Amino acid sequence: MHEFTLLQRVFARNAELPASVIVPPGDDMAMMMLSPSHALLAACDSAIEGVHAPMGCDARVLGRKAVLRNLSDVAAMMNARPIATLACVTLPRDCDDARAWQLFEGLRETAAAWGAPLIGGDVSKMSASTTHAPIIASVTILAVRIDETRAVVTRCSARAGDNIYVTGTIGGAWDAVTGLGRHLNFTPRIKVAQTLHALLGDALGAAIDVSDGLGRDLGHIATQSRVRLEIDLARVPICAGSTAREAIAHGEDYELAFTARGEVPSEVDGVAITLVGRVVEGEPAVIALVAGESFDIAQCGYEHRTTLRGSA
Amino acid sequence: MHEFTLLQRVFARNAELPASVIVPPGDDMAMMMLSPSHALLAACDSAIEGVHAPMGCDARVLGRKAVLRNLSDVAAMMNARPIATLACVTLPRDCDDARAWQLFEGLRETAAAWGAPLIGGDVSKMSASTTHAPIIASVTILAVRIDETRAVVTRCSARAGDNIYVTGTIGGAWDAVTGLGRHLNFTPRIKVAQTLHALLGDALGAAIDVSDGLGRDLGHIATQSRVRLEIDLARVPICAGSTAREAIAHGEDYELAFTARGEVPSEVDGVAITLVGRVVEGEPAVIALVAGESFDIAQCGYEHRTTLRGSA
Repeated sequence: MHEFTLLQRVFARNAELPASVIVPPGDDMAMMMLSPSHALLAACDSAIEGVHAPMGCDARVLGRKAVLRNLSDVAAMMNARPIATLACVTLPRDCDDARAWQLFEGLRETAAAWGAPLIGGDVSKMSASTTHAPIIASVTILAVRIDETRAVVTRCSARAGDNIYVTGTIGGAWDAVTGLGRHLNFTPRIKVAQTLHALLGDALGAAIDVSDGLGRDLGHIATQSRVRLEIDLARVPICAGSTAREAIAHGEDYELAFTARGEVPSEVDGVAITLVGRVVEGEPAVIALVAGESFDIAQCGYEHRTTLRGSA
Repeated sequence: MHEFTLLQRVFARNAELPASVIVPPGDDMAMMMLSPSHALLAACDSAIEGVHAPMGCDARVLGRKAVLRNLSDVAAMMNARPIATLACVTLPRDCDDARAWQLFEGLRETAAAWGAPLIGGDVSKMSASTTHAPIIASVTILAVRIDETRAVVTRCSARAGDNIYVTGTIGGAWDAVTGLGRHLNFTPRIKVAQTLHALLGDALGAAIDVSDGLGRDLGHIATQSRVRLEIDLARVPICAGSTAREAIAHGEDYELAFTARGEVPSEVDGVAITLVGRVVEGEPAVIALVAGESFDIAQCGYEHRTTLRGSA
């Protein structure tokens, strides 16, 4: 079962969420009200050696990536700023102290640099019977709204008539042979998101961070907003060296995809904002238009099926 | 390096925590103010197959334990109630869907039963090269104060003159051969803690949950409050079948140890509250008094050194 399907089924059994949970699980972050005027956002994501970074990598790089992935979820809510992180670390039984320390340094310094200090932690070691055990950093990030009088931007609020945009470039975020690439050290689009939210406000529709592949991630917006997304494939800002097909299914881009009405700047804080399509009424689907043909790309995405080896 | 030492060193590098972090990491939960009147508490803890429950266990039991461990941390703050949980789940590459589902059922239903619905989740699989890979549930718990006008009870606030108490019985929480025992299904002392806080208020000194062994956990209170704790070993409510020495070093009790002045009830909500010693001035130490002799038990605690096999 795909991760998303499993989680969807789990959360579907959450029959009685309290009314304070305004954005239920299934978005980039959940949001609950702590008082009528104070919202708290929360999300969690892991980084696993051999999956999200090569086996034997610099543990600091893995810790950094674990926090950056979570910060990318904060960016996707657009009206949010991170305030704190917590990290559960799982280590091989024979992990040396220096590597554990490096992992925490990556977690701590990245979290602090983004205004989300590490306020909680746990360390456990796996059983000695586990061989080729990875180091794992499971991070929870907490955030608050920047403007408490306005909503956050979810995956559910794309409207027919919105245009579709992506930040930066898509594809080529990692090298399939070495496992290296910009997925190990990217800039979460928090500042871009905040600027766009301040500029556009309610003109924003839906948003998501592009982590599983542009096709699959736009598919979440289509399904959760019950709209059809039409993408002009030729407009998608593909990373040099990638084909459009690779780029769309690649994942690990950690860019934002969002929908909006009205005028949207072509660049924010040095990051390109590219119009790639439009939202129309219809059955939920993500339709790529290319050379007069159309095909559904909502299932085009990346899953971590392979083991990465090498050094990072 | 022991887990606690590692985390202590990590958090010591957190030079610039914002003033909003009232209880810094190093306690059962951290606490930060979201506004002058609204505090948020957070903590995280994992449960790992083969470490916290036997290899091959019912995954639902592991999920339940992961949440219960975190709820025990909420109890230790005494003026707190849980509001939400998030869970990062890591699975062996070949883990079947049924087991993953059971793990999430254990997480979800336990969290819901305690008023802390699962609002976020992540699922990742380890690389195929990892053999005898465990299932892992890394849970973050969020809580708020019950009485926003009063402090929570930390490890730092024991005062010379306080008495020392423990809830329930200590020791024998798990069977060293099978790995089974009440550590797999205990009642976090949240209700007891809340009742005690309502009754005793500022008469409460410090508190901690007894998870690593009574000796070691009281050691945290001694160190963080800069006091000497004297324990009458004969008074410690030892589980039938355990020796005092085993009980003190055993861990996984998930009872509370706390200090207080004045009158303390001998039972709350059907749980015994036992006076076991007193707080005095002096160098931080936990001194057990038995048959006219005294010895320091602040280093007596449990670490998960062995692999558990069997079925739970």
